[in-house]
Amino acid sequence: MNKKKIRITGTFLDEISHDIPHQNWGAKEWSEDFIWMSKADLKRVILIRCGYKNWITYPSEILIKQEKAIRPHWDLVSFFLQCCEKNNFEFYFGLYDSGKYWVNGDYKKEIQLNKKIISEVWHLYGHSKAFKGWYLSQECSHNSGEIIELYHELGSHCKSVSNGLAVLISPYIDGEKNVSQYITNTQKKSSITLDDHFKSWNDIFSGIRSAVDIVAFQDGHVHYDQLYEFIKVNKELADQNKMTSWINSETFDRDMPIKFLPIKWDKLRFKLDTAFKAGIEDAITFEFSHFMSPQSSYLQAGHLYNRYLEYLKE
Amino acid sequence: MNKKKIRITGTFLDEISHDIPHQNWGAKEWSEDFIWMSKADLKRVILIRCGYKNWITYPSEILIKQEKAIRPHWDLVSFFLQCCEKNNFEFYFGLYDSGKYWVNGDYKKEIQLNKKIISEVWHLYGHSKAFKGWYLSQECSHNSGEIIELYHELGSHCKSVSNGLAVLISPYIDGEKNVSQYITNTQKKSSITLDDHFKSWNDIFSGIRSAVDIVAFQDGHVHYDQLYEFIKVNKELADQNKMTSWINSETFDRDMPIKFLPIKWDKLRFKLDTAFKAGIEDAITFEFSHFMSPQSSYLQAGHLYNRYLEYLKE
Amino acid sequence: MNKKKIRITGTFLDEISHDIPHQNWGAKEWSEDFIWMSKADLKRVILIRCGYKNWITYPSEILIKQEKAIRPHWDLVSFFLQCCEKNNFEFYFGLYDSGKYWVNGDYKKEIQLNKKIISEVWHLYGHSKAFKGWYLSQECSHNSGEIIELYHELGSHCKSVSNGLAVLISPYIDGEKNVSQYITNTQKKSSITLDDHFKSWNDIFSGIRSAVDIVAFQDGHVHYDQLYEFIKVNKELADQNKMTSWINSETFDRDMPIKFLPIKWDKLRFKLDTAFKAGIEDAITFEFSHFMSPQSSYLQAGHLYNRYLEYLKE
Repeated sequence: MNKKKIRITGTFLDEISHDIPHQNWGAKEWSEDFIWMSKADLKRVILIRCGYKNWITYPSEILIKQEKAIRPHWDLVSFFLQCCEKNNFEFYFGLYDSGKYWVNGDYKKEIQLNKKIISEVWHLYGHSKAFKGWYLSQECSHNSGEIIELYHELGSHCKSVSNGLAVLISPYIDGEKNVSQYITNTQKKSSITLDDHFKSWNDIFSGIRSAVDIVAFQDGHVHYDQLYEFIKVNKELADQNKMTSWINSETFDRDMPIKFLPIKWDKLRFKLDTAFKAGIEDAITFEFSHFMSPQSSYLQAGHLYNRYLEYLKE
Repeated sequence: MNKKKIRITGTFLDEISHDIPHQNWGAKEWSEDFIWMSKADLKRVILIRCGYKNWITYPSEILIKQEKAIRPHWDLVSFFLQCCEKNNFEFYFGLYDSGKYWVNGDYKKEIQLNKKIISEVWHLYGHSKAFKGWYLSQECSHNSGEIIELYHELGSHCKSVSNGLAVLISPYIDGEKNVSQYITNTQKKSSITLDDHFKSWNDIFSGIRSAVDIVAFQDGHVHYDQLYEFIKVNKELADQNKMTSWINSETFDRDMPIKFLPIKWDKLRFKLDTAFKAGIEDAITFEFSHFMSPQSSYLQAGHLYNRYLEYLKE
Repeated sequence: MNKKKIRITGTFLDEISHDIPHQNWGAKEWSEDFIWMSKADLKRVILIRCGYKNWITYPSEILIKQEKAIRPHWDLVSFFLQCCEKNNFEFYFGLYDSGKYWVNGDYKKEIQLNKKIISEVWHLYGHSKAFKGWYLSQECSHNSGEIIELYHELGSHCKSVSNGLAVLISPYIDGEKNVSQYITNTQKKSSITLDDHFKSWNDIFSGIRSAVDIVAFQDGHVHYDQLYEFIKVNKELADQNKMTSWINSETFDRDMPIKFLPIKWDKLRFKLDTAFKAGIEDAITFEFSHFMSPQSSYLQAGHLYNRYLEYLKE
């Protein structure tokens, strides 16, 4: 029992959500979720983004003034930090995603805006002993636009204001399941080749290695048959660039027309085992509260939690 | 505490549903929902439509004979009226939506059919002291087809059989989120301009003002940045035509690929506050049983209920 | 009370699921589901398929070696058979669906592979007294490809290894609601004519009558107005070919943009009544655990269960 295996040590907190409907939890539900996470041996949370378009997690005067963000009724960042302190969790802060500047090619503006936010956030919350790192929320699958500059500039600024706290990114693979969540297809015809993927990430990693510490690739976009070789390449590239590799093991099911509900346990277990075989020891997941929590609005999540706990005891 | 604010005073009852899966509630669940609604200070319900295509809420001999409607296993209209009487709620009766006649341009047939139904319904249920008004269920966003004639003819007939009971409509705005629920996109490129919207509703209101008393625009189809100015125009137009303005504050989230789950509380609160700023004091919602009720099949709804109750106490 | 009516006597078990998200139930939940089914007078379960692409329900050495299937963490077939024995249920075993060979025209390979699986399965589980029949999981709506040969070859092989146990198929009708679950439309413009449907199934039935015993057409793809005449034709064709007719009365709602949630009770009751009028006495459903079970993740399902139990007592 308790044979060596990969474990889910952390989860994203999907606030502000981009595409998963909010659960409208209050202090009571979030506090209990940290208990459920503790029981499953999680020890870190990553706020996926502090804001998206108009919606923000903390009362950022910068975003309210400059981006017409709507003042939230509650300071979630402050609350999450308290939960982390109480439960000995590490907190990673996810940057703002404008949903427009970088998407429309203006990486400079996305960078400038986020530099101000990084400073604001560190001023407001940097004193918390749970504040352990940063998450660059602009996700990509290959070297496009000025993504290298964005990661490098923002990662460096995070480090410089926070005395070198860890910086995390979570890219995806342009596999056959990399389809928009706004279409109902679950697959497309073509997938990036392993070779092109290697070349693209070789370039990115060498351009950002001084500014980014951890890379946690998402594991849901490629066919199960191809997963091992892609994770293996990612791990090797990260090793060469002295970056730490985690896996972001998605707990929702990309194979179903309904977007998105909890994943079948056999699929999650296969993905975790595959990452372990490729030499990765730490998994985080997107994400616990909707897809694994016993108090999720999706009741399948609680059953997934039970299956995962059985696996931990194996 | 209890500062002046807009309140949700009523809800649609989404029976027969057009696009939201039914919950299959029986007498027990519906009775309890009226208790939950009372606790949140709601005081009126609006049956969104008494029938849609083959499916009807009460055993209408007209619809069963002429429209091949399928006899329901239960007279929901009678039951809802009893619930209203017991809990001091007002009941608004929604007309039949053929899903074909007016949609395919035959407004005359939609009007003729509904005139018969209005008479049948008043004969069957007009004696109930809870029967307080009518809802014209044919929704539109601008002056198209013979929508003015339909509203005018049906509103007038409702009033003439019922000694002038109130008549309600709930139009929508042809904004960027006015996309079919049968596609997964959540936005389209173009939105109606404020000016074109004004002109269209100026025409409609002047054509229906003697037959319609209350207009409750849906608030979910325009970008949050534009909501205030559209509501403001709607309110001014209604004032000029001596119609009462409510807001139909949708409690489901139009920004998500999954259609439709409960809305994030911050979004609902922003929409309510925005309507209040524009001078509106009464909100109804689409709709309580799926998206706000503690006994909803969507558990996010119960959390939204709790957030809303906290807001009432602020 | 208890007037003569059609009853749901069985259900598919949707493992491995093709398009409905898994619930991640363990032994506890499945055991309880057999109790819930018993209380509603069900007496048979049909494993819809023993595997689909990489995912399988039992540790099939054939599928693991030849098809890169992933070893399941649990032998569900063995477990389901135990549940059936304990609760006096009949078990029908559904064949493997490659999701590729027959779909891409290679019916021969789909047949060869499944013949091996049939032998493997009978060797492993044929001793169970609950093992009462087979289900040919390759569904079709008309005579296309080599579907007759596939049904004939596989049905015959099932019978020959198992001393003639019953063989079941569950085709669908190419009606206006026969649309991909990977698009959000719920209807298409054209439907097969009753005449073309008759001709196609006349050919199929005469080609497979010695190898297939029971046909349970799915009842969800045609407009409610047309359902009776299609079921009637299906029943007559089956009678002529000395096959038993059941109806596969779907308990999810094909009319809604969200795919797939439990059906409105009035619709299910109408479909059951319609099949009964056409002379059918046995219904099975797709499927109980997601769409009718009181412990389903979709809470609408439990309410549907209650409505169905009320109907049984009428």
